[in-house]
Amino acid sequence: MGAGLGGWWVHGWCRFGGGGAVGAWGRVGCRMSPGWVHGWCRFGGGQGGAGLGAGLGAGQVAPRPLPAPRSTSTWLGAPLEQLPTPALTLDQATMRRNAERMRERCRALGLRLRPHVKTHKTLEGAELATGGTRRGIVVSTLAEARFFAAGGFDDILYAYPLAGGRLAECAALAQRLQTFQLLLDSPQALALLQQHPLPGTKRWLVWLKLDCGNGRAGVRPADPAALALARAIAEGAPEKVTLVGVYAHCGDTYGCRDVLAVQAIARATATAVLDFVTVLRQAGVPCPQASIGSTPSCSHPVPEMARLTELHPGNYLFYDLQQTLLGSCHPEEVAIRVLTRVIGHYPHRNQLLVDCGWAALSLHGRDQAPTGCAAIEGHPQLRLVGLTQEHGQVEAVDGQLDFGRFPLGSILALIPFHACATAAMHPVYYVHAGGKVVELWHPVRGW
Amino acid sequence: MGAGLGGWWVHGWCRFGGGGAVGAWGRVGCRMSPGWVHGWCRFGGGQGGAGLGAGLGAGQVAPRPLPAPRSTSTWLGAPLEQLPTPALTLDQATMRRNAERMRERCRALGLRLRPHVKTHKTLEGAELATGGTRRGIVVSTLAEARFFAAGGFDDILYAYPLAGGRLAECAALAQRLQTFQLLLDSPQALALLQQHPLPGTKRWLVWLKLDCGNGRAGVRPADPAALALARAIAEGAPEKVTLVGVYAHCGDTYGCRDVLAVQAIARATATAVLDFVTVLRQAGVPCPQASIGSTPSCSHPVPEMARLTELHPGNYLFYDLQQTLLGSCHPEEVAIRVLTRVIGHYPHRNQLLVDCGWAALSLHGRDQAPTGCAAIEGHPQLRLVGLTQEHGQVEAVDGQLDFGRFPLGSILALIPFHACATAAMHPVYYVHAGGKVVELWHPVRGW
Repeated sequence: MGAGLGGWWVHGWCRFGGGGAVGAWGRVGCRMSPGWVHGWCRFGGGQGGAGLGAGLGAGQVAPRPLPAPRSTSTWLGAPLEQLPTPALTLDQATMRRNAERMRERCRALGLRLRPHVKTHKTLEGAELATGGTRRGIVVSTLAEARFFAAGGFDDILYAYPLAGGRLAECAALAQRLQTFQLLLDSPQALALLQQHPLPGTKRWLVWLKLDCGNGRAGVRPADPAALALARAIAEGAPEKVTLVGVYAHCGDTYGCRDVLAVQAIARATATAVLDFVTVLRQAGVPCPQASIGSTPSCSHPVPEMARLTELHPGNYLFYDLQQTLLGSCHPEEVAIRVLTRVIGHYPHRNQLLVDCGWAALSLHGRDQAPTGCAAIEGHPQLRLVGLTQEHGQVEAVDGQLDFGRFPLGSILALIPFHACATAAMHPVYYVHAGGKVVELWHPVRGW
Repeated sequence: MGAGLGGWWVHGWCRFGGGGAVGAWGRVGCRMSPGWVHGWCRFGGGQGGAGLGAGLGAGQVAPRPLPAPRSTSTWLGAPLEQLPTPALTLDQATMRRNAERMRERCRALGLRLRPHVKTHKTLEGAELATGGTRRGIVVSTLAEARFFAAGGFDDILYAYPLAGGRLAECAALAQRLQTFQLLLDSPQALALLQQHPLPGTKRWLVWLKLDCGNGRAGVRPADPAALALARAIAEGAPEKVTLVGVYAHCGDTYGCRDVLAVQAIARATATAVLDFVTVLRQAGVPCPQASIGSTPSCSHPVPEMARLTELHPGNYLFYDLQQTLLGSCHPEEVAIRVLTRVIGHYPHRNQLLVDCGWAALSLHGRDQAPTGCAAIEGHPQLRLVGLTQEHGQVEAVDGQLDFGRFPLGSILALIPFHACATAAMHPVYYVHAGGKVVELWHPVRGW
């Protein structure tokens, strides 16, 4: 949880397994508060963990007043342990460090950082990632593009294969912004832009998408069609459509098992992109920019990347369990958690229920991480073994679950496998510092 | 797509594999429109499917005006093929039939239908499912409870283990509604209610959650703790907390492979619930209601269920690929689709890209269905093989992909594996009839 939780959680991450990419998660010195820790209701006399039947007799019951329920906005200033769960929380200090570290990496390489915003999809996250400039971001949907444009951002690259049906929306963004940029990887998309030039002095600004081994969108730089397409952009109708740069995503780094493998892909991708830029230069095709991205590759940049002009990682602002397994970050750099409460004890099957299901976590990582969709912070002896829409099932990794340590209402912090997927499930993120909620972030959704 | 798509899609579902639970999906007589079918932009002269380089020369380009982009609300009345993709669409006629069929099943059994709203989370869906009464629904989150209360619904059962930290919100709902009901499965939760009675003449209305083999929340009816808890509710402080009924979810039906297995679970669950009610009666504990649910069990009810008082299925309004594999419904009863467009051709790896990733579909079903997270309607020769956040990768099941049949911009309709999970990814659902959008539904989110 980083520094934010103060006395509630004790710090000191550790990772079992000797620094390898895959290992059990734990935390030294964690302590749980007894009973209900949310500050509203406690089971009678701190006996939250007491046996069944405690406090049942009508004669023992004294009415207690309930506070009025809060609306979301009133959670500003509240201690984290009072939040309704499941709650997506973000450690402000950790995010700031992550943002600064990535900017520093880019400065050291002499590159511009153009952060991708698809993980968080919030104005505040993008403000942090751009160092307050609000200039130079990547989006993956037009809903994001409109949201950030309306929020005062500019120099927005819509890094997605251009779809004909969305061209009117792109034209509106190009008119509204100083710099709205598109990605393309087909002659058809180029023809579409050329057939629909922007009015006035505006021109379509396009990046050619390269596939350097990721195997998703893009033309392969060694394919003659790549040079042909770049040439067609540059020479077809440059007063209408201008080639800004070449763009590649190292998504294949997510299949790696360690940093050396990630760096090998980053090196190969950067080299392929730069070799293609050389080919363009030799062919007389102007191409001022070259950008690659992916959080794994940008977290451990290789020297070859210094010859590019931009990097465009996104996940690094939050990081997640997957990134720690890839070696992109240390556990203490992961800013995101999903807080959840214990809502049931089922000793006959040695299970706890928690109030976090796939609706708050997603199913990402289910078969990919040793801990499944999330690690449970500070409790390497626990494992999230099942998720339905609103319920999570927690078991002991080995042996008998110590139910007394996890009374009903006690809070567990889940470290999600995939922050992008988990964030997509939440309408609000609770940003915390000093153990309290300091900001509420509201992401954009849809397309 | 049901009857809604008119001439655009030809009907006639078929299913390969001879009526078994698992089979490939297809549709007889499907035809695709050539070129870009969305009505805004077409590649030059209907040549959308033509080879690379078509229409590239600047000399061939004539500027064409673009229409103004639309906001979401203006999609009312639009043909489905104009929708921005990915788009969650719902066939109005199919949903109406599904709603009516489930009501008819309950009428035939002499039971009340109390539809669960967690799949769609919309006022309109719940209006349809309740036959317009807006009375008697199940919710799984307090955000849903508040949303439906504000939308004019009443007799709402919050079917989730009571969490202490949310009691103030429950009290507000109990005050606001004529009938707000809770679920509990522990003496601690009962104590909490008894310690916080509602003011005035209101009392907490609770259902005892039974676990009849599902293995999630609930007390097992054969466990002496179940009778003890029911007795404690009835005898503890009945003027404050009243036992309304017993409630069980047959979630274990989702592990079945055919209708007979589903019915065996439904029979066992109904019998266990009814036997427990008998035990209560013998013990002098009043328990007027008994409810079980799950769409598989309620889609093929067994006679034993007639002795219950309510059923509470939810998914049946949409149904989905999973439900067809379970035998809950026929393919033509599935109302939900995600429309997606082809955004890239990659012949060197025999793949199409479509503009639907896990952000629009979820990863549910990836390893559970022969078609993965979704079947592609009318195209049993295609398979969705990969999903990243905003991209889907489509391959031929066998042999070479016929790219000419799927020009850039052409639309595919995906039948999601799990409607609840897919719906959770969309801020708006497009309801269609006669091939046009007739309603926009906006679900509630959060907790």
